[in-house]
Amino acid sequence: MEQVSFALNIVLESAATLKNESVELEKSLGRVLACDILANRDLPPYDVSAMDGFAVRSADLPGILAIAEDIKAGDMPTVALKPGQCSRIMTGAALPEGANAVIRVEDTRQISVNEVQIDLAVKSGNDLRLRGENMRAGNVVLTAGTEITPGVIGILATVKARKIEVHCKPSVAILSTGNELESLDDPVDPCKIPDSNTYALMAQVQALGIEPKLLGIARDDQDELEWHLKRGLEYDVLLVSGGTSVGVHDYVRPTMEKLGIEMKFWRVAMKPGHPLAFGLLHRTQKTSEADAVQDARRAATQAYLMDRQGSEHRATQQCAASDAFVFGLPGNPVSSMVCFEQFVAPLLRRMMGNTRLYRRTVKARLQHPFSMKPGRTEFVRVQLSSDESGYLASSTGTQSSGVLLSMARADGLMVLPACCTGLPAGEEVIVQLLDGTEFQDDPGYRE
Amino acid sequence: MEQVSFALNIVLESAATLKNESVELEKSLGRVLACDILANRDLPPYDVSAMDGFAVRSADLPGILAIAEDIKAGDMPTVALKPGQCSRIMTGAALPEGANAVIRVEDTRQISVNEVQIDLAVKSGNDLRLRGENMRAGNVVLTAGTEITPGVIGILATVKARKIEVHCKPSVAILSTGNELESLDDPVDPCKIPDSNTYALMAQVQALGIEPKLLGIARDDQDELEWHLKRGLEYDVLLVSGGTSVGVHDYVRPTMEKLGIEMKFWRVAMKPGHPLAFGLLHRTQKTSEADAVQDARRAATQAYLMDRQGSEHRATQQCAASDAFVFGLPGNPVSSMVCFEQFVAPLLRRMMGNTRLYRRTVKARLQHPFSMKPGRTEFVRVQLSSDESGYLASSTGTQSSGVLLSMARADGLMVLPACCTGLPAGEEVIVQLLDGTEFQDDPGYRE
Repeated sequence: MEQVSFALNIVLESAATLKNESVELEKSLGRVLACDILANRDLPPYDVSAMDGFAVRSADLPGILAIAEDIKAGDMPTVALKPGQCSRIMTGAALPEGANAVIRVEDTRQISVNEVQIDLAVKSGNDLRLRGENMRAGNVVLTAGTEITPGVIGILATVKARKIEVHCKPSVAILSTGNELESLDDPVDPCKIPDSNTYALMAQVQALGIEPKLLGIARDDQDELEWHLKRGLEYDVLLVSGGTSVGVHDYVRPTMEKLGIEMKFWRVAMKPGHPLAFGLLHRTQKTSEADAVQDARRAATQAYLMDRQGSEHRATQQCAASDAFVFGLPGNPVSSMVCFEQFVAPLLRRMMGNTRLYRRTVKARLQHPFSMKPGRTEFVRVQLSSDESGYLASSTGTQSSGVLLSMARADGLMVLPACCTGLPAGEEVIVQLLDGTEFQDDPGYRE
Repeated sequence: MEQVSFALNIVLESAATLKNESVELEKSLGRVLACDILANRDLPPYDVSAMDGFAVRSADLPGILAIAEDIKAGDMPTVALKPGQCSRIMTGAALPEGANAVIRVEDTRQISVNEVQIDLAVKSGNDLRLRGENMRAGNVVLTAGTEITPGVIGILATVKARKIEVHCKPSVAILSTGNELESLDDPVDPCKIPDSNTYALMAQVQALGIEPKLLGIARDDQDELEWHLKRGLEYDVLLVSGGTSVGVHDYVRPTMEKLGIEMKFWRVAMKPGHPLAFGLLHRTQKTSEADAVQDARRAATQAYLMDRQGSEHRATQQCAASDAFVFGLPGNPVSSMVCFEQFVAPLLRRMMGNTRLYRRTVKARLQHPFSMKPGRTEFVRVQLSSDESGYLASSTGTQSSGVLLSMARADGLMVLPACCTGLPAGEEVIVQLLDGTEFQDDPGYRE
């Protein structure tokens, strides 16, 4: 039985980042840049005003200055400032010759149609932005591996990257197994268990920006299971829930072995999530990482050159992972979701080129004592609140792995190391934030 | 000039949650339930095993037991256990009559084809899940207002909620203003400023799950601006960037007033983001909040009844906000993005029914001294790292509102109150996490 971190290493070292594809700027949020982005211009293109106000010669201040002209944003100045002169200037407009500073309009008093009084003195460079301060043509402004956030999209628009080379998303298939499962479209049968895993896993995959293929339910029959697994292995990552524990009726293990899947581990020392299996099916068209790096370099240069010509980047590349990865997730809905967060999400994110693979963690104080048997790393569903000292964590109640409601109510997973035998109230603990906790119900700061 | 919290209250109290629409389960991630969800069955439907192992009479233990039958998940037991008997049982399978506990297979030793030796003793109820422990038919399992996370989707699948009533998403339009702007499709003109605001705002809206309409660039001409604003006011929320500061060439303010927009404020005491305006255009078909609550109740009952019949929920409702909201955002790209996070995102989330409106905050220790002029709440772009004590924050460098790269590099915004004159290194500060910081580059826990 593997430790969590050992198993996680096995999973992560199995996978390389996928090749590139070209996406439209409008569809690029959350993707990861596959090549460096170079500036196509100097920004600002000349020294510009950082404020609405007056462009001045700092040596003239304080004093009453004659207004030489109005420089609107987008216009170029036409008058070079002589001593005693200033120009009205808009934020972002080019500084006139002779000027070396800007005074914002709030700090001035217009005393006649052509004159403004300025009572303060400033140094050269006040409220200016210098040419090339933000970016210089030809310089790298964003490096390969950058996750595309709204701020990054602002930069991409600035350098006119209409199409962007990003790492491909893996294709993901989801299969549930077990005679006891009732599908979403079946009528209610009290003898059956509704298949929630397919949809909870679907949503976990969607939360990473990937639309998975739902393969449905494979019954406990070796031929049927084999047929479903073969379909699933056409995807980059196959998630199979149920059927991997040690009961005699489980067909998943022998069928996976029969299909040539190289199983890396079958169990992990964690709770919930004990029966977690991981394996891979080697495919032929293996691309080495070195090739991928070279491809990215080539793409970067190409993209830059094409940008300069105002044309579009090269067409979308075909991209496929070299191996197919298979997870045998526990049939219990909570266990399955917890295993997804710990192992599947980091793998999928690595394949997409992300370097941040793990759910954000915060420290919290435990609100009540918690006892556990040592030997397995525990992921305890908790709700978070906060007081002056920071976050407070309290268990959602029952930690039975069958109780999916506790997962729906959880803000995070408190992680307790395998050596732990329990904690008193007030102890500091680590909580992994779950999906949906990106926002909070209070601004969290005071003015 | 309004304080941030005062302005935020004005914004939030202007908007009500939007009406409902029906969406497919597969499209519901991130939406907010508009009505309570009731259980359509008992779960588990009977007492079931929580493990793969043997169903036993606890009084028989420890001892050697005769195996009466195999109960697979999905099958019903056929043999009632007599003293000295047990049944092999799969996780999730129904407990046979007479049994009151389960022993997991790892704790047993099969000594012949029909006999198993169990060396430990357990209490009644060991490794069982009782009928209705997870949910009881007719009880509320999820309340209106719940954000649909993967765990919630698991519950929705469990109760066969194929279509779900959620709050509508607001329609959002984005307009940039200014003669100095160069659009993404224009050739590079060094005298112009590339329009990054349209795309950065687009991505911020997309990050909330809304696909905005991009209206392009309105030039500094009253008629053109009026035409664009009129188009924008057909949306629930209109974001106008640029043109709201106090320069003489700004046309936005008079045009907004001419169009009957009731402006609530024009400036906020914050940095960056000073010239931030907010107003609303009253529309006729006003729906009171009381009506909305009643609608939601009706929908809940209806949904429950229809679920019981196995049919689909009612058709999608038409939904429109009663008022149109207009934000005049600063033209500076960083200011515009910061204002979006502080004011626009909470409004959009409130309209969608979210109760968590604000970006998650964490405490961090400042890595260097930071000085500021008091009077305005500052939102300082910072990068986060961590050590044993927790998060560490350090400024991304220049805090000029023109430097969008610093926003692209920031992990969060350190919020410093308006009364603050500066902080020494080592001080504890509040950091709002930005989009893209949901994940981190380290698991954050140790085993």
